[in-house]
Amino acid sequence: MSVIVAGTFRIPPENFAGLKPHLQTVVAETRKEDGCLTYSYARDVEDPGLIRVFEHWRDQAALDAHFQAPHMIAWQKVRVEHGFHDRQIWSHDVTDGRAI
Amino acid sequence: MSVIVAGTFRIPPENFAGLKPHLQTVVAETRKEDGCLTYSYARDVEDPGLIRVFEHWRDQAALDAHFQAPHMIAWQKVRVEHGFHDRQIWSHDVTDGRAI
Repeated sequence: MSVIVAGTFRIPPENFAGLKPHLQTVVAETRKEDGCLTYSYARDVEDPGLIRVFEHWRDQAALDAHFQAPHMIAWQKVRVEHGFHDRQIWSHDVTDGRAI
Repeated sequence: MSVIVAGTFRIPPENFAGLKPHLQTVVAETRKEDGCLTYSYARDVEDPGLIRVFEHWRDQAALDAHFQAPHMIAWQKVRVEHGFHDRQIWSHDVTDGRAI
């Protein structure tokens, strides 16, 4: 069973440029992780302070390991310095999938 | 069993401003649909021509009905006029979920 992680967080829109290189680092490093199928951040089309997270992991063990990765520890610190707030993230158990 | 729809499409970045009001319309209309739990579009933080789609539906029947909605028919036409291409969308069967 694979795992989709999806949700949102907020940053003050004026802080986005400063956060962007850190986002790029955590994306690049996480995509190298074992079991990472998709890992992405995107800005909502209507709300530039709303960042949408989407991740797909091979299994729960891969996701558990991800949270212990050094780049995640660094990211969790630096995002707070850029005004990260209102984190609303869900994990979903996935049994099957298909292109539509 | 709920259904997550997720993936990407591309538009020429210079067409985004013209597409945006149509995106806003399809988002507003779709969020009113029965069984729509989440419906969103966001621009990838690194690639402004890459639009990320995330949807969560109560069940497959609700998703099936969505594709027949008048605003979806209109959206499928107008997006092509704005250079929509490289659609890569997946449907995922979800058995359980939790805030993390």
